[in-house]
Amino acid sequence: MTGFYVTILGNGSAVPTATQHPSSQIVRLSEEQFMIDCGEGAQMQMIKYKIKHRKLNHIFVSHLHGDHYFGLFGLVATFHLFGREDPLNIYAPSDLQKLLEHQLRISKTNLRFNLNFHALEDYKSKPLFKSSYYAVTTFPLYHRIPTWGVKIRKQDKELRVDKEFVAKYKPSIDQIVRIKKGGDFVTESGKVLENKEITLPLRPDKVYAYCSDTVFNEHLIDHVQGADLLYHEATFDSSMQEIAKEKFHSTSVDAATMAKKAGVRKLLLGHYSARFDDLSELLQEARSVFPNTLLSEEGQTYSIK
Amino acid sequence: MTGFYVTILGNGSAVPTATQHPSSQIVRLSEEQFMIDCGEGAQMQMIKYKIKHRKLNHIFVSHLHGDHYFGLFGLVATFHLFGREDPLNIYAPSDLQKLLEHQLRISKTNLRFNLNFHALEDYKSKPLFKSSYYAVTTFPLYHRIPTWGVKIRKQDKELRVDKEFVAKYKPSIDQIVRIKKGGDFVTESGKVLENKEITLPLRPDKVYAYCSDTVFNEHLIDHVQGADLLYHEATFDSSMQEIAKEKFHSTSVDAATMAKKAGVRKLLLGHYSARFDDLSELLQEARSVFPNTLLSEEGQTYSIK
Repeated sequence: MTGFYVTILGNGSAVPTATQHPSSQIVRLSEEQFMIDCGEGAQMQMIKYKIKHRKLNHIFVSHLHGDHYFGLFGLVATFHLFGREDPLNIYAPSDLQKLLEHQLRISKTNLRFNLNFHALEDYKSKPLFKSSYYAVTTFPLYHRIPTWGVKIRKQDKELRVDKEFVAKYKPSIDQIVRIKKGGDFVTESGKVLENKEITLPLRPDKVYAYCSDTVFNEHLIDHVQGADLLYHEATFDSSMQEIAKEKFHSTSVDAATMAKKAGVRKLLLGHYSARFDDLSELLQEARSVFPNTLLSEEGQTYSIK
Repeated sequence: MTGFYVTILGNGSAVPTATQHPSSQIVRLSEEQFMIDCGEGAQMQMIKYKIKHRKLNHIFVSHLHGDHYFGLFGLVATFHLFGREDPLNIYAPSDLQKLLEHQLRISKTNLRFNLNFHALEDYKSKPLFKSSYYAVTTFPLYHRIPTWGVKIRKQDKELRVDKEFVAKYKPSIDQIVRIKKGGDFVTESGKVLENKEITLPLRPDKVYAYCSDTVFNEHLIDHVQGADLLYHEATFDSSMQEIAKEKFHSTSVDAATMAKKAGVRKLLLGHYSARFDDLSELLQEARSVFPNTLLSEEGQTYSIK
């Protein structure tokens, strides 16, 4: 799979319901998997939605309210019991490292794999991690305790070689590697084919941004500007604007306003309060401000394109 | 409800599966609820099986392997968010208290209710708690880390007054209270009705015993002797006797042998390894030793009688 997808494992808020699990989602980028938040039961949701964890090497925890990390202990234990050997990278507020080590100590667990802990406090101006074709960065949200959002940018780093050219001139692998990096091609008869004639233009970057939990704050606009898909919390409806502010959460109208001001392509709502039996009001309110809004659904996969 | 029941929330072992959740169960005794173990997702299983947590005041954690307590953080957080005021009693290995306090500290949670922590190490010879009609005691199991079993004894502490006598002589409430405590009754004509004529005999005690996780050890027999219902782990089948011993777990035949030697009335198997798709072999093996054996099923309620 060469796409860029997010699968929602949980989109509830602090208190689970019969249909809503605490926050967790899986982003897939070609062969890689990346988990954003790990609420209680995340590993069971992965089983339910048939998501393998073999390629899950990076877990991001936005903040230390339990509905965003209580599933981490169980997931780490399962990795251990399955004999995992690949290192696991956890990006989280620094306090989580001590808690996780405390838990491993009292259960007398000596992990078989390296657990590389990256304190989010240390990543103000550098990517959390990156590869040749993506970069993951974090930015501060505005919640009651220190909280971070995350942004994943998929980039075309290599030129794609035109298929008709390949069929006609049958370049060697070495030649293809050079062309992908911008080189020209010389035919057997000595004719120079310029790079731009034999490659396709770089595709625009694709960006996914995640904002949960946060109150509306204009400082966020720059961070999510132009995202192709923005997952934004919508804990409350607009009639509860005051309580949203007091608790440092957003209404669905706040989320839609952020999407509009940041010029994103599509908005995905989540982190719904357990008080709503029917979410259609949240959607309607958001769409009145930003029409290209969807309600996230657990188990559903959304393409970032 | 005046009965004595156990509802299974989770009967899997360390690694959850699509159908098995980590260990947790709810014992109901008249108006009281008592949770035994609290694996990840226990609060979601309570929602699924429509079990209210308003009357849940006592939680027992057998040992500090994660599949027996990772659900506790979330359940405590939910109690807090629902505005709980009643104290919550947790009976667990002492190390859990520090871990729970550590978690509450980093999430900046000041619980609205008292969390009374009772270290299982301190209860060698006294009940964990008791009321006029039941007593809960603990006893050591034989696992890789310190682990405790639990036994709940329901007792008829007051005599039950014969209904025909009440209909005929219409005793006052004060008189009924005296009769329940063993007193006689004097009719208006001065005739003495002896206590044994106007009451029903005390019913025998009802006992539920829980043993998970443990290797087979004859020292356990005394503790579960004569239980009406014994929940016993059966992580492995008899072909895996060696691995069971090595990991300090039981086979289904070990569980049945314990049930037989302790003269229990009924055996309920659980804590199944994730490797079994079909549990019928475990059941058959156990029944060959102890016929009155059942496979526990998640969501099912078993009466202790």
